[in-house]
Amino acid sequence: MPVPTHIFNPPFNVVRCSHAVLTVRDLEASRAFYERAIGLKVEHADKGALYFRGMEERNHHSLVLKQGAEPAAQRLGFKMGSEEDLDRAAAFFKERQLPAKFVEVPFQGRTLHAADAQGNPLELYFKMDQGERILQQYGHYAGCHPQRFDHFNVFTPDPQASIEFYAALGFRLTEYAESDDPVPRIAAAWMHRKGGVHDMAFTNGRGPRLHHIAYWVPTALNIIHLCDLMASTGYLANMERGPGRHGISNAFFLYVRDPDGHRTELYTSDYLTVDPDFEPIRWSLRDPRRQTLWGTPAPRTWFEEGSEFPGVPVKPPVHDLKPVIAD
Amino acid sequence: MPVPTHIFNPPFNVVRCSHAVLTVRDLEASRAFYERAIGLKVEHADKGALYFRGMEERNHHSLVLKQGAEPAAQRLGFKMGSEEDLDRAAAFFKERQLPAKFVEVPFQGRTLHAADAQGNPLELYFKMDQGERILQQYGHYAGCHPQRFDHFNVFTPDPQASIEFYAALGFRLTEYAESDDPVPRIAAAWMHRKGGVHDMAFTNGRGPRLHHIAYWVPTALNIIHLCDLMASTGYLANMERGPGRHGISNAFFLYVRDPDGHRTELYTSDYLTVDPDFEPIRWSLRDPRRQTLWGTPAPRTWFEEGSEFPGVPVKPPVHDLKPVIAD
Amino acid sequence: MPVPTHIFNPPFNVVRCSHAVLTVRDLEASRAFYERAIGLKVEHADKGALYFRGMEERNHHSLVLKQGAEPAAQRLGFKMGSEEDLDRAAAFFKERQLPAKFVEVPFQGRTLHAADAQGNPLELYFKMDQGERILQQYGHYAGCHPQRFDHFNVFTPDPQASIEFYAALGFRLTEYAESDDPVPRIAAAWMHRKGGVHDMAFTNGRGPRLHHIAYWVPTALNIIHLCDLMASTGYLANMERGPGRHGISNAFFLYVRDPDGHRTELYTSDYLTVDPDFEPIRWSLRDPRRQTLWGTPAPRTWFEEGSEFPGVPVKPPVHDLKPVIAD
Amino acid sequence: MPVPTHIFNPPFNVVRCSHAVLTVRDLEASRAFYERAIGLKVEHADKGALYFRGMEERNHHSLVLKQGAEPAAQRLGFKMGSEEDLDRAAAFFKERQLPAKFVEVPFQGRTLHAADAQGNPLELYFKMDQGERILQQYGHYAGCHPQRFDHFNVFTPDPQASIEFYAALGFRLTEYAESDDPVPRIAAAWMHRKGGVHDMAFTNGRGPRLHHIAYWVPTALNIIHLCDLMASTGYLANMERGPGRHGISNAFFLYVRDPDGHRTELYTSDYLTVDPDFEPIRWSLRDPRRQTLWGTPAPRTWFEEGSEFPGVPVKPPVHDLKPVIAD
Repeated sequence: MPVPTHIFNPPFNVVRCSHAVLTVRDLEASRAFYERAIGLKVEHADKGALYFRGMEERNHHSLVLKQGAEPAAQRLGFKMGSEEDLDRAAAFFKERQLPAKFVEVPFQGRTLHAADAQGNPLELYFKMDQGERILQQYGHYAGCHPQRFDHFNVFTPDPQASIEFYAALGFRLTEYAESDDPVPRIAAAWMHRKGGVHDMAFTNGRGPRLHHIAYWVPTALNIIHLCDLMASTGYLANMERGPGRHGISNAFFLYVRDPDGHRTELYTSDYLTVDPDFEPIRWSLRDPRRQTLWGTPAPRTWFEEGSEFPGVPVKPPVHDLKPVIAD
Repeated sequence: MPVPTHIFNPPFNVVRCSHAVLTVRDLEASRAFYERAIGLKVEHADKGALYFRGMEERNHHSLVLKQGAEPAAQRLGFKMGSEEDLDRAAAFFKERQLPAKFVEVPFQGRTLHAADAQGNPLELYFKMDQGERILQQYGHYAGCHPQRFDHFNVFTPDPQASIEFYAALGFRLTEYAESDDPVPRIAAAWMHRKGGVHDMAFTNGRGPRLHHIAYWVPTALNIIHLCDLMASTGYLANMERGPGRHGISNAFFLYVRDPDGHRTELYTSDYLTVDPDFEPIRWSLRDPRRQTLWGTPAPRTWFEEGSEFPGVPVKPPVHDLKPVIAD
Repeated sequence: MPVPTHIFNPPFNVVRCSHAVLTVRDLEASRAFYERAIGLKVEHADKGALYFRGMEERNHHSLVLKQGAEPAAQRLGFKMGSEEDLDRAAAFFKERQLPAKFVEVPFQGRTLHAADAQGNPLELYFKMDQGERILQQYGHYAGCHPQRFDHFNVFTPDPQASIEFYAALGFRLTEYAESDDPVPRIAAAWMHRKGGVHDMAFTNGRGPRLHHIAYWVPTALNIIHLCDLMASTGYLANMERGPGRHGISNAFFLYVRDPDGHRTELYTSDYLTVDPDFEPIRWSLRDPRRQTLWGTPAPRTWFEEGSEFPGVPVKPPVHDLKPVIAD
Repeated sequence: MPVPTHIFNPPFNVVRCSHAVLTVRDLEASRAFYERAIGLKVEHADKGALYFRGMEERNHHSLVLKQGAEPAAQRLGFKMGSEEDLDRAAAFFKERQLPAKFVEVPFQGRTLHAADAQGNPLELYFKMDQGERILQQYGHYAGCHPQRFDHFNVFTPDPQASIEFYAALGFRLTEYAESDDPVPRIAAAWMHRKGGVHDMAFTNGRGPRLHHIAYWVPTALNIIHLCDLMASTGYLANMERGPGRHGISNAFFLYVRDPDGHRTELYTSDYLTVDPDFEPIRWSLRDPRRQTLWGTPAPRTWFEEGSEFPGVPVKPPVHDLKPVIAD
């Protein structure tokens, strides 16, 4: 299927993906997981919510957990280039008759709640409260030393439509996996704004659902230590896939599940993608090195399980594109 | 001294620093150093020149060495956003009565030779030949696994003037070192275009001269291996400073000198700077953790020696700002 | 089953496991694998054999490959404490009516070919030619920087009998895996002489056959680089298991197969076992963290495939002890 | 000077160095340093003393800190092979008219307090209480993940005499630094019992004084993290030397000073020395790669400062052997 042409002057400026808002059933259990295993800093805690950030992040939060009856994904947060970009975004969504309304959100300036064409609930803002700089306060480091929020990955029933929607917002395709059919179809795609491999990735499947969020960590050894730590502090069953090297993105990775099943990737060492003449990289869906450069396929759960957005209907995939599965 | 306001809409779009052109006296000796110690890939070699690139670079070259009678720095290369940006750049330099002419350069498209207000010779282009993707061809990896060209650092006799010139081109200040005088003066500054800590840095001193070029490497262990390798393959005396952690940038570093004395930094793990509301970080010139977070000052050579640009007069610094020196 | 009492004054002094002798079908293909992927130094090559050593080894060889029609394991080499120990060993084997004869072996002093009670062919010596010290000649380092031969692992049809034979030689049990049956049976055991977790390990199964040899490498990152290197230089299918952290031994590991199917483990970071009051560690055969601390079971091939010793009959296991298998 | 012949059957069996006993002025300040920066586990704390151990150690303690008015080194602890070895040791010291008496020591079995010929106070024992195995309880890991006590280094006024005393106890010389004088003299020596580069090292200088104790850590990255941690948690001035690679031993190292000035080395990646035909390695005292393979000399404090043993007179060195010093 056609790869989109990159738009250098999008209708509004999305700087980067910024934060996730999730619902969890037990804030204390989640806090133990994200603070002591993953190693995020708790920036604020109140009766109903927890706010976390990574070691290099100056923004108040990159992960918000809210107390709820059922696990759910709430919002995908993106940082805009300016207040004007926020207004342009509002206009853009309204023009397309997509949801878009300004809301009050703690620790953030003007915030727009919108939804993309597939129904993913978005949270756009320009200003957020700033925290103290802790990048060089190494006494705060714990777990795998998570540095910064890196990306979202969502299940989409129609990857081609998702790519085209985000391409129109100036997201740039870096890599994609395609079937080898006579009419090839894209089964997964990686798109960026900030200069890495992705801010947003799409996986063919029942959706929209959140597949995972990702934090960037310094080195593979931090990820290996996280494996050791999780295996010996009660989180053995929460390690879902990896560690390994992705063929796609070349990043070293680990996928873990939090106490509510929300999936987080720990991710390191992708590459710079700022060149305007960057050419996207195509992978065959059947290439054994695509998922993991070392040939290990992902488990079935990785392809099937994800976090639903409350009130957003989940649709089956338009095309049944079969990836290589471990079992 | 005043920190410049960031300009979001510069007169032309510099994507990133891209490559250095240096003169060396013995191409074979230099090839041994950059190919077998540092680990760069030789992309092209002819009688008078060598072209190298890092493991993730698709551009044909990020380092060009030319045979010459005397060691010298020739050009600082920058990639533009488009051919139109190249024309806008030509107009910009001409309007300011700075050198600017289009030249033919092997393996590059239209190329503009210009000079900044301090006299640093620049080489601007949009298109460069592309090489095969070797990021995942690990059989090519050698030395410290250099991934990509990261930045230039130049001596300038007037850091404030240099900052203002590049700020006008849309370079953004990330960190700076300032004297604690009643009228504080900036002694060193780091400015970026691509989203890291810098594409271009300025060090107060006799200039303009090239202080160093830098390659980004995956982890500190690659740098430690380079130390072991250099110490045992005849390059013991070429190790000038480090390894260590910079206070500024938080990067892990090593500075080495090539057979002609040109300085290269191996550099890893700085942080993302794309946020539009990023606030520059100020360091006192006397903070022992500024140069090296662990307190070790740099040697005198590091503050005094650099590569001159042929035909470009070197001027003494306007202000005598005393950094902490090891001896 | 009973754990043996450690014998502090064995009949002869085995210092450590030392080298393996294997038959391969294509010396050039094997050389490419062990020299360029694994990174061993070729110390000697002639028409019929290749001799390799690791970076810290002063002994002439720790791996000998001989040209042959069929892949086979030939000998397990052990270093003795003195020439007298060699004579005591000869007497010991003869007294038990086990094979034992002195032979001429290139690059070694007096060498005894013997066999243990299960039929594993042994090669005992005290003196070996010494090579130049290359530990600090980092220009020799390649692949995963293998430092030294670490251990043998053999399939045995009767682990209890194997343990008792080697315990009588002063090998000390460090860890073992046992069934949870009313009469528990040892399914695997690790025994050392040199002060690490093992020089010799036993795996229940059709035997005697060589399960694997192992080299000690400096860090997990060297093993991760080997994965990347193998995956991109034609050895993707040769990566059998890992990387991961063993529960047993706590070592970080990778298992690879050479072009003839001989298995090598790359191994790092076990612990010191020299204390006379060291207590062996028991693992339940069903503990998911035993094989890999992170819970990933080994593939079926790992439990079933091994290298036979020519002329040594292979017997089925006395007890059918079921480990956890990945499929 | 003559290198001693190794004695394979010493008068008693010293298994390894085991623990240090130090006096500190403020137990809480010391606890913060060793527990939170270095990362040792506090095994026992009472009003007058703290007991620490490393992650892989089963013995109750490898570092004992006692409250006192002045900083001092108290005892160098060694583990014996058996109770009989302890009695043989007592006889050995008494025969030479050196101090030797059995004392009661908490958490240890029968314990012999003795002194070597230079006056270093020793503490010999066979049995010590055992702690729970925490090697695979990664939730206990902190700081630089110290694994085990590795060695002592003491200032001696007469290195040759010290070497000969310990050689008579079966300690084996692995490396030594010698002057290039017509009559060369040993200025420093490394001797082992347990199979690494050393359990005990000697440095020419005013002595006897304790130069440093050392803990073995998994990788260089753990040491780099310790540098970052110390630099940002109030211990910047406590970092004395490194990180770097020793020429001697090939180990990666960092030297730090505790709140009372006691020196600890964090140490990783030396090599195996169990071969009976191991040949000691000679270094010229003037070789720039001896102290640090990368050429950086140690600071003056490293050569001059050490911890005195109360009541043990300090003598000037017999020979004035000048090492290379940084200033």
